Amino acid sequence: MRNNSQLKLSFLGGVGEVGKNMMCMEYGDEMIIVDCGVSFPSDNMPGIDLVIPDFSYVLKNRHKVKAVVITHGHEDHIGALPYLMQELSCPVYASRLSAALIDNKLREHKKKFKTTTVKNGTIIKAGVFTIEFVKVTHSISGSMAIAVTTPCGVWFHTGDFKMDFTPIDGQPIDLIRLAEISKKGVLLLTADSTNAERPGFSMSEKKVGATLDGLFAQNKQKRIIIATFASNVHRIQQILDLCEKYGRKAVFTGRSMQNVCETASKIGELRYNRENITDVNSLNKYDDDKICILCTGSQGEPNSALSRMANGEFPKVEITNNDYIIFSASAIPGNEKEIGEVINLLYKKGASVIYESLAEVHVSGHAYQEELKTIQSIIKPKFFVPCHGEFRHLKAHANISMDLGKPERNIVIPDLGDSITITPNSIKKSGTVPAGIKLIDGLDISSANGVVQRDRMQLATEGLCVVVLTISSKNYTLTSKPDIVTKGFIYANDNANIIEDAKDLVINTIINANFKHNDWNIIKDTIRKSLGNLFFKNLKRRPIIIPIIVPTV
Amino acid sequence: MRNNSQLKLSFLGGVGEVGKNMMCMEYGDEMIIVDCGVSFPSDNMPGIDLVIPDFSYVLKNRHKVKAVVITHGHEDHIGALPYLMQELSCPVYASRLSAALIDNKLREHKKKFKTTTVKNGTIIKAGVFTIEFVKVTHSISGSMAIAVTTPCGVWFHTGDFKMDFTPIDGQPIDLIRLAEISKKGVLLLTADSTNAERPGFSMSEKKVGATLDGLFAQNKQKRIIIATFASNVHRIQQILDLCEKYGRKAVFTGRSMQNVCETASKIGELRYNRENITDVNSLNKYDDDKICILCTGSQGEPNSALSRMANGEFPKVEITNNDYIIFSASAIPGNEKEIGEVINLLYKKGASVIYESLAEVHVSGHAYQEELKTIQSIIKPKFFVPCHGEFRHLKAHANISMDLGKPERNIVIPDLGDSITITPNSIKKSGTVPAGIKLIDGLDISSANGVVQRDRMQLATEGLCVVVLTISSKNYTLTSKPDIVTKGFIYANDNANIIEDAKDLVINTIINANFKHNDWNIIKDTIRKSLGNLFFKNLKRRPIIIPIIVPTV
Repeated sequence: MRNNSQLKLSFLGGVGEVGKNMMCMEYGDEMIIVDCGVSFPSDNMPGIDLVIPDFSYVLKNRHKVKAVVITHGHEDHIGALPYLMQELSCPVYASRLSAALIDNKLREHKKKFKTTTVKNGTIIKAGVFTIEFVKVTHSISGSMAIAVTTPCGVWFHTGDFKMDFTPIDGQPIDLIRLAEISKKGVLLLTADSTNAERPGFSMSEKKVGATLDGLFAQNKQKRIIIATFASNVHRIQQILDLCEKYGRKAVFTGRSMQNVCETASKIGELRYNRENITDVNSLNKYDDDKICILCTGSQGEPNSALSRMANGEFPKVEITNNDYIIFSASAIPGNEKEIGEVINLLYKKGASVIYESLAEVHVSGHAYQEELKTIQSIIKPKFFVPCHGEFRHLKAHANISMDLGKPERNIVIPDLGDSITITPNSIKKSGTVPAGIKLIDGLDISSANGVVQRDRMQLATEGLCVVVLTISSKNYTLTSKPDIVTKGFIYANDNANIIEDAKDLVINTIINANFKHNDWNIIKDTIRKSLGNLFFKNLKRRPIIIPIIVPTV
Repeated sequence: MRNNSQLKLSFLGGVGEVGKNMMCMEYGDEMIIVDCGVSFPSDNMPGIDLVIPDFSYVLKNRHKVKAVVITHGHEDHIGALPYLMQELSCPVYASRLSAALIDNKLREHKKKFKTTTVKNGTIIKAGVFTIEFVKVTHSISGSMAIAVTTPCGVWFHTGDFKMDFTPIDGQPIDLIRLAEISKKGVLLLTADSTNAERPGFSMSEKKVGATLDGLFAQNKQKRIIIATFASNVHRIQQILDLCEKYGRKAVFTGRSMQNVCETASKIGELRYNRENITDVNSLNKYDDDKICILCTGSQGEPNSALSRMANGEFPKVEITNNDYIIFSASAIPGNEKEIGEVINLLYKKGASVIYESLAEVHVSGHAYQEELKTIQSIIKPKFFVPCHGEFRHLKAHANISMDLGKPERNIVIPDLGDSITITPNSIKKSGTVPAGIKLIDGLDISSANGVVQRDRMQLATEGLCVVVLTISSKNYTLTSKPDIVTKGFIYANDNANIIEDAKDLVINTIINANFKHNDWNIIKDTIRKSLGNLFFKNLKRRPIIIPIIVPTV
């Protein structure tokens, strides 16, 4: 090991935010990338479908990239991978389920690529990096931590994880293997901070199964409808097992529920008897008490199966007072209102509705404080960098590490775009790399979409006023009465007066300005100002004003 | 009492929603109105300042209105009153603090009106109705229930309330008076359903004082900043008392905090020694440990004092690592993300931040299940109508009443606009009245603002494309090349090709259509269709397309 050897860890997403996780680790001229996820558009991004990380830093260094490593198959870890791989041609490693979900995504993208599957204990070489995959438990199966041996020492990254010692697949996190890795000495730990504010230990996924079992037993006469995350294969496995136990046919509804279940079943991650599955078209063949519908929509998403059922818009599933509906999920912050609205609609149709505040029908997939302490205590890293979380979560996670005795100087809390330099003896922030967001709207990743978004927000809050002026190219006077078209500003039928006033003002403005040259921009600015004043004075509004000049001879 | 006498209770707001509470009770040709509140615009109402109830039903029956009765001074109960009173001239009754807050609002409105103040035990006559005000506890002082004697029997309405037996003003709800009212026989109970899903009994406001006392004691060296609701006068009283106890000067920041505290202090609802108050301009005269800042912004509102401090934009208050910041409030559903963002920014500046999930720094102002049971058990109404809540809350409240033994036929769950007819022997839904929302944007209440809003949402999600065509009035051909202006659609510099393609398409469309008459609307439709197809095919976008035709000779 050379004394001047150093690692550079850069965060392109997943810190200072929940979502679009992506980081890259460099040593000299070699780089590996861990995850490449999306986040969802916020309220001030109208019309945007997806948000992906700005990965221009990776593209600028594309010659360095030895591998992309995927920890698990959630959208916030794989969603942007197809966009990245349009531009790269390095190996991609992922567990079997993650790889299958990545393959599903490629249907919608031009460039295809192959993902190499790995499992617990798989070791791969990527340049100077030797990467061992270590199975962890999380709310999707096939979740991996990675232990990366580098020329500077070992880097352990948890990925998203929790410590479930009674997982549905019977394979808990391998503490013995973690201890072996620890004994060789871990230089750096990066770990999931999502639940660093929550005291205690998260409940096992099995607990949800026990609760659901009770609800199935208590509601034998009713039709049961369960909304959950399509990717939570173990949750779905438990529900399918209960369907078998209670003699109900399971029905998958919602596109992602159908896709994921089919995919997971093909690779053996989900096990069920085909005879116990039916579809919505066959619902009329069965009594309510013989059916359990699994659907998407636990977050109140407007186009999901459950929302459409609640609105009476889902063909062949009509909600009645004999429906027992379970939200087997918790609200992702920001979705509370939409979820509440769906619950109200279901209640109005007479259904019974059960959600997290009424019964233990969901557990988190992320480690709580005592689990985080357990990982730190077994991995015993020299340096610690909390990741995957808003600043408050990273800060809480850093506090946990300090409570365990780690000196503050051995901890770095990263921000988006930060690079951290790690040597065998030191850790420090060492500058920034380009990082941020790219917006996906339809087919477009526009470099200037910030401008477009700003205009959209202005159009949305204030509306628009187009003024058409026909102006003589000879003497710069109006050759006909100006025309005014508004959208999202005022309802013209109710406001004929103000439109007439505006036209008169435009005429007078042009006369008074007495333009002597055809600098259309000056004329446009003059019109914008005088109309802007009129509207604000009379209506307290500031629409976007677009003057259009048609020169005439 | 005539056999055919009946009451008609109509809900103009506050059911099927949280906010804009308003109802009217009629007997024959006489009507009283209870509350007239606002709600806040949802995400699909860009640019809207306030949402008020559609009270056209009241205006149509204005000759009937004998009184407006206000239960308490929260915005969702008084916010729309100035708009209603532009059109009415009947007495308005409210407690002293409510009346003072109403007077504050009138500054911004043209028509002034006088509010008559009432207190616990006040009895007023309004036509056939005799209204007794009964003090209740809630998160604002001066909260009233009403017991209304009508020709059909007594109607008891709780208003927003909780049962706090150790309130800050020492005046708990008068159970003896409630029992007296009950003994005369109550025909109808309408009651606050906000917390009908929460089991148990809400904590006393005094509990918050005890928690805050502990936090003051533990953080003697730090500057303390507390964000809370400006209208929670008892919370503020407790904080001011702690400032005195711990030798800190209190500073009110944020416009509504300053207004409410001044108003409440003038009428004696808030008691403090003027010498213990200072202002932001004098902050530099005091050490951190001698200051406590009370501010608005507990909901993460972008322009509030605390948000501006977090963003480093509040003059004279710079957040440092010696600040101890308390969110003495809980998140109103829908505000979670904004609050989280403010917390992150404060943490980044090094401050300590405490919020509800970390300490008992807030209690709810609304009754929990055991309190609701207590009220039902003491009032013993014949009929019950849950109000103030989304459908799920009303439903939960109805379930509580049935658990207490009330038959389902004696309970009606109202929806917005429902009228309920009550006779001494029966209760039933009896039709609907016009009800809904009016949007306030600047100075305007437009009757057609639904159209404007729909356009705004479309502009926001898809953007806009204006096409200017100069067309000969003789032969209906283009006389010059079309011009295209876009906003919020594509960034023109990056998309010169598509704009050129669009212009060519417009030219060809006009040529191929070979118009023979000046039906401009047909020409516009043709252009809209062909451009729409082009944009969707190439970009998967659907902007609003506005063709503008300038006829030339």
